[in-house]
Amino acid sequence: MVHADSSNFAEGQSKKAVYAQVLEQARLLFDGQRNWVCNFSNTAALLWNAYHSLPFPSASVNWAGFYFTDPSNPSRLLLGPFQGQVACQIIALGRGVCGTAAKEGRTQLVEDVENFPGHIACDGASRSEVVVPVVKSGKVVAIIDIDCAELNGFTTEDQEALEELAQLLAEACDF
Amino acid sequence: MVHADSSNFAEGQSKKAVYAQVLEQARLLFDGQRNWVCNFSNTAALLWNAYHSLPFPSASVNWAGFYFTDPSNPSRLLLGPFQGQVACQIIALGRGVCGTAAKEGRTQLVEDVENFPGHIACDGASRSEVVVPVVKSGKVVAIIDIDCAELNGFTTEDQEALEELAQLLAEACDF
Repeated sequence: MVHADSSNFAEGQSKKAVYAQVLEQARLLFDGQRNWVCNFSNTAALLWNAYHSLPFPSASVNWAGFYFTDPSNPSRLLLGPFQGQVACQIIALGRGVCGTAAKEGRTQLVEDVENFPGHIACDGASRSEVVVPVVKSGKVVAIIDIDCAELNGFTTEDQEALEELAQLLAEACDF
Repeated sequence: MVHADSSNFAEGQSKKAVYAQVLEQARLLFDGQRNWVCNFSNTAALLWNAYHSLPFPSASVNWAGFYFTDPSNPSRLLLGPFQGQVACQIIALGRGVCGTAAKEGRTQLVEDVENFPGHIACDGASRSEVVVPVVKSGKVVAIIDIDCAELNGFTTEDQEALEELAQLLAEACDF
C-alpha cells in the first residue's frame, strides 16, 4: 500500500467507521516517527480527506489542522500544518475559539461561531467549529482545529473522536 | 481582508499572474513572522489553491508542500506541511526526486516520474513532479515538492517561480 492510500476513505461509510480509519491510520503512520511536524502534517491530510468522504455537514469542512504553542512565547499559538485556505498566523491565548480551548485546556464545540465571544474570522465562510487541545505532561502543546461552512457542523461524536486523536498525538510526538 | 482571501485566486488568470499573487501574498504573510512551520503551512495553502485555479495540467496537481532536513539527522528529509493526501514521512538524501534535489541542491523538473531512477511513489497517481531546494547559508534546509497527476505537469515557468519562492522562504524563515 502506498502512503496516499491511508487517506483514501470509501464513500458511504458511517462517521464512526471513518474516524476509526483516521485513528488506525494515524497509529500506523506514527509508528517509529516522533517528529510532531511530520505527524501533524499527515494527520491534517487524514482529517481533511475523512470529512470530505462523509455527507453534509461534514463534507462542508473548509479547514482542518493545527495551531501549536509558540515555544518562544507560550502565551500565544502559531499556525501549524493544515489543509484548507490561508489562515491567521498568531492567536493569543484566550482569544477566539482556538485561544479559549488552549487557555482552558478544554474542547470547544461551537454550533455557530458568530455567537462565540471574540471569534476570530480567518475565513468568513466558516460557520461552526470544534477545537480540541493536545495536552502533554499537563501542558497544552497544540490544538486540533476543524472549521465547517455550515452551522452545527460537529457533534459530541466528533468531539470524542478528536479527543482520542489528540491523546494519541500527545503520546506519539515529541514537541 | 480575512486571511483566507490570500488564497482565493480568480479563475482565468495566466500562470504568470497566479505565481505573482503567490509571491506577493507570501511576502505579506511572512512580514513579522519568521517561524518556518507557520510560514510553510500557509505557503502550501497558497500553492495548492493557486494550481487549482489554473487550467490543465496545473489543475491536476495532487500534492503541494514541503520536506525539511531532519535536524537530528541531516542525511534525511522529514515530511513537512503540505496539502493533498498522506505522504511518506522519511526520504533519504539522494533517494528519488526529493532526495536528489536535496543532495544536489538543484531543482529537479521531471516530465515523467516513472523514468526517474529510484522514484519513490508516495501516491501511484502522481505522473510528473518539480522539486526545488530551499537553501539557507549554503545548506539545503527544505525542499518544495509539487506532484501532478498528468505527465509534463510543469515547465521552466513553474521552476523559475518556485525558485523565487524558495529564496523568499530561505530569507524569511528561521530554521
